[in-house]
Amino acid sequence: MGEFDLIKRYFDRPELRAGQVMSIGIGDDCAMLDIPQGCQLAVSSDTLLAGAHFFSDMPAHQIAQRCLAASVSDLAAMGATPAWFNLCLTLPDADPDWLADFSQGLACQAQACGISLAGGDTTKGPLSISIHVMGWTPTGAALTRNGAKIGDAILVSGSLGDSAAGLRLIQTNRQAQGYLAERYWQPTPRLSLGQWLRQKATACVDISDGLAQDLGHILKASDCGADLQLNQLPLSPALLSQVSKAQAQDYALSGGEDFELCFTLPQTHVASALAYAQDSAVPITKIGTIGSELGCRIWHSDGAEYKPQSGYQHF
Amino acid sequence: MGEFDLIKRYFDRPELRAGQVMSIGIGDDCAMLDIPQGCQLAVSSDTLLAGAHFFSDMPAHQIAQRCLAASVSDLAAMGATPAWFNLCLTLPDADPDWLADFSQGLACQAQACGISLAGGDTTKGPLSISIHVMGWTPTGAALTRNGAKIGDAILVSGSLGDSAAGLRLIQTNRQAQGYLAERYWQPTPRLSLGQWLRQKATACVDISDGLAQDLGHILKASDCGADLQLNQLPLSPALLSQVSKAQAQDYALSGGEDFELCFTLPQTHVASALAYAQDSAVPITKIGTIGSELGCRIWHSDGAEYKPQSGYQHF
Repeated sequence: MGEFDLIKRYFDRPELRAGQVMSIGIGDDCAMLDIPQGCQLAVSSDTLLAGAHFFSDMPAHQIAQRCLAASVSDLAAMGATPAWFNLCLTLPDADPDWLADFSQGLACQAQACGISLAGGDTTKGPLSISIHVMGWTPTGAALTRNGAKIGDAILVSGSLGDSAAGLRLIQTNRQAQGYLAERYWQPTPRLSLGQWLRQKATACVDISDGLAQDLGHILKASDCGADLQLNQLPLSPALLSQVSKAQAQDYALSGGEDFELCFTLPQTHVASALAYAQDSAVPITKIGTIGSELGCRIWHSDGAEYKPQSGYQHF
Repeated sequence: MGEFDLIKRYFDRPELRAGQVMSIGIGDDCAMLDIPQGCQLAVSSDTLLAGAHFFSDMPAHQIAQRCLAASVSDLAAMGATPAWFNLCLTLPDADPDWLADFSQGLACQAQACGISLAGGDTTKGPLSISIHVMGWTPTGAALTRNGAKIGDAILVSGSLGDSAAGLRLIQTNRQAQGYLAERYWQPTPRLSLGQWLRQKATACVDISDGLAQDLGHILKASDCGADLQLNQLPLSPALLSQVSKAQAQDYALSGGEDFELCFTLPQTHVASALAYAQDSAVPITKIGTIGSELGCRIWHSDGAEYKPQSGYQHF
């Protein structure tokens, strides 16, 4: 099977055009895309490598779902509406069964996120997936990292640490099932929440390297500090049934790859955010407050300070 | 050196912001970019792997220059104006000397192409480079592959086959210098020509897999055929001094990675294209004519038919 046949069969499919239409899509030197008037393009690129970011011996559809979700999560963190993505797929060989399964998982996630495959590249080599996501926000409405203000509330979506615990299960048993494994394989980009937060949140990130490190990006960019309440961290019943509370808290702070949103809100918006959470069934939890003293301090309920591990560093 | 320090030191540099400004650049979850009103976004992605597309033991600045040029060439083929690129860099380790040299080469090429680094990703693994280039054309003005008409002239820019010959020299001697090696290491995206061809060319591709295969994309998309004159293929004196004429013609047809443009023009535009070539110092050569009989036929000057090898296939 040649490169062009491979693209035609597995990637130039209507199921993968679940988002915006393309003026010109797969099959030319570039895709040509229309950004709505009054909007800015949001773009982000991620590479996920077999071994480092997923297991090559896992089902291909799970690999595809996870990789696309992780990339789209960056659009959610800007409050952007997903539109298109490009896929650079490096494969050791062109196995038709693997490709069919991968394409199926990719289509599932593309439909869940409302995003269209616009182009990409296929090459032969060690399995790796590089995804370039594109979307838009109204001009000037993107959620950035640098607007947090002293006194703002710090909130997170969903529950934290599930993905890290799910990863540990999958590391020892590739067949692991259940809520925690699902949270690792099928992260849910918080797209609706991100869009709702436009014009409300003062700063936002998605949690890919652990809450402590990703909140740290907000604090550095906004030149402020934070006080977090350890017992406010949202921990799922599934996580607490699997590991000790201390371990769960450590996963929540430093485990990474939750792909939940961490954002700061003026206190006046907190009630409406919690009401939005109830209406939308996206849990939102207030976990702390922005302060003037630089750095992030985490407090036990007895007033003692907790020291987190640092987030994941690639090098 | 952490991932964030690495990005800050080697990639968040003014020298790499040689194209359009970013509303939000490196350092947030997404870059935010403004497409001029009345324009469409052009986007293309390429992955280049050590071993397959370049040699890992070559100077890092040459690797960077070559990879960015190869990607930007896709913008040239659409007649697009370059604006931004995202870089996904997978490295076995974070060697400061290598990174400084890579960053320098990337900045050189970014300046030559007028393109800004907007974001990307760094991961640890086998050396590979995935580049997502973005640019624009006036809405509806992109050069596509599907508009070639019977009777159109077929033209190419520059000379063909140099890069393939340069690669053979480099394969046997990493220190190879001179015109052919340069043509491999520093392809020249034909950006001005591409933009000039808007509203004039009926079809255009860049030559990455060899003239025969890439012209084949135009013929397939436009549902027509071509007759090429073998002795019209533009061959450089350097190429002809290195290999036989037959070998040079074979490199020109099937060697690949020339990153020259192949385009079709109504005969009425040919004279002005040749005048443009003289003014701009970008050589342009008429090599054949679009016909109704499907497929590509190549003719010796004595009227006998020549049979080309096929272009490069990744799988």
